[in-house]
Amino acid sequence: MSRGGIAHWMLEEVGQPYELKVVDYGAPMKSDDFLAVNPMGKVPAIVHGGKVVTEVAAICAYLADAFPEAGLAPDPKNRADYYRWLFFAAGPVEAAVSTRACGFEPSEENQRTLGFGTLEATLDTLAGAVRDRRYIAGDRFSAADVYVGSHIGWGMQFGTMDERPEFVAYWEGLKDRPARQVADRFMREAMEQAGRE
Amino acid sequence: MSRGGIAHWMLEEVGQPYELKVVDYGAPMKSDDFLAVNPMGKVPAIVHGGKVVTEVAAICAYLADAFPEAGLAPDPKNRADYYRWLFFAAGPVEAAVSTRACGFEPSEENQRTLGFGTLEATLDTLAGAVRDRRYIAGDRFSAADVYVGSHIGWGMQFGTMDERPEFVAYWEGLKDRPARQVADRFMREAMEQAGRE
Ligand SMILES: N[C@@H](CCC(=O)N[C@@H](CS)C(=O)NCC(=O)O)C(=O)O
Ligand SMILES: N[C@@H](CCC(=O)N[C@@H](CS)C(=O)NCC(=O)O)C(=O)O
Repeated sequence: MSRGGIAHWMLEEVGQPYELKVVDYGAPMKSDDFLAVNPMGKVPAIVHGGKVVTEVAAICAYLADAFPEAGLAPDPKNRADYYRWLFFAAGPVEAAVSTRACGFEPSEENQRTLGFGTLEATLDTLAGAVRDRRYIAGDRFSAADVYVGSHIGWGMQFGTMDERPEFVAYWEGLKDRPARQVADRFMREAMEQAGRE
Repeated sequence: MSRGGIAHWMLEEVGQPYELKVVDYGAPMKSDDFLAVNPMGKVPAIVHGGKVVTEVAAICAYLADAFPEAGLAPDPKNRADYYRWLFFAAGPVEAAVSTRACGFEPSEENQRTLGFGTLEATLDTLAGAVRDRRYIAGDRFSAADVYVGSHIGWGMQFGTMDERPEFVAYWEGLKDRPARQVADRFMREAMEQAGRE
C-alpha cells in the first residue's frame, strides 16, 4: 500500500514489459541495497536503461517521454497545463494534504511563505483545474491524469480530500481504466496476502 | 522578493523577449485580476500563447520545452535525472525546508507518510545528487539547474539550508551565470526602490 500503485498504473498505461519488485516497509526499505537505489529509503523507484528515477510524479513524466509511442504526454510545445498541474500536485497538493494529515496548521504568516498557502486554497484551485474537464491537460489522457487522478482518487478514499463534485466527476472518468484496475488489483491482493502472513 | 526571481532567471536563459510585471504582496496579489491568472493568489505565473503556467518548477520545465533552441532540457528520451531532481526539489525539498521554517517537526510515524521523511534525509539526498557534479542532469546546464540551484542558493542565503560543501561547490558553478545576475540585480533594485517608497 504505497505511492508505488501510481507508478504501477503508469507502467501499465505505457504497455511495455516490466518487472515489479515489492519492497517491504521498515528494514528492507532502509537496507543498503535499496538505499543505493533511493537514498530516501522510500518507494516507488524505477530503474530503466541503467538510470534510476524516484519521485512518482517524475516517474510518470519520465515514462511518458521515454515511450512516446504510448501517447501519454502532449507535444513538448504544448505542455502548459501538463507541467502546471503535475507540479501543482507534486508540490502544493502533496504538501498541503500530507501536513494536514499530520496535524500541522500553518499560521497566517506561514501561508505567505508556504507554497500551498492553505489546504482549502489548494483544493479550490485543484477543483477549478478539473471542473468540467475529462482530462487535466488538453483533450487527451496523459501522465498528468495518472498522477493528479491518483491524488484525487486516493485522497477521497482515505478521507484526506473532500468529495467535491469536481473531484468525483473527474475520478469517475479515470478509475475504470484497465491499466489502473490492474495496479489496483495487484495492490489489494498483495495486501490480503500480507494480512494472511 | 519572491520565487519570481527563479522564473526571471529562467526567462533570461531562454533569451526571448518578455514583459515583466511586478505584483505587490497583499491586496494586488489577491485581486480578481490576478486571481484570474493564478487562483492561489501567488507569484510567479507566466502567460505565453494565451496559456497560464504557475508553479515555478513548471514554468522552468515549460519554457525549456517551448523554446528548444535554447537547449535547456535534455532530449525527451534522456530525462531520468532531469525529472527526478526537478520533482525532488518541487516536492520533498520545498516541503521539508518550508515546513521546518514554520516550526513543524514531523513525528517518526509522520516521516513514513510525508514525502520528505525528514529535512536531514532530504538534504542528504540532495547533497548526493550534486556531489562532484557541475550540472544536475547530464553534462549540460538545464532548467533543472535553474530550479534546483535556486533552492540551494537561496536556501543557503536565507539560512534555511546548511552550507554543505556540496551545495557551495554546485552553487559556485551557477551563481555567476549572466542570466541569473540579471534577475538578481532586478530584484535587488526593485527592493531598494520599495524600501525608499
Ligand atoms: N516524494 C516521494 C514520496 C515517497 C514516499 O513517501 N513513499 C512512502 C510510501 S507511499 C514510503 O516509502 N514510506 C516509507 C518510509 O518512509 O519509510 C514520491 O512522491 O514518490
Ligand atoms: N508553489 C508555488 C509557490 C508560490 C509562492 O508561495 N509564492 C510566494 C512568494 S515566493 C507568494 O506569492 N506569496 C504570497 C502569498 O501567498 O500571499 C511555486 O512553486 O511557484
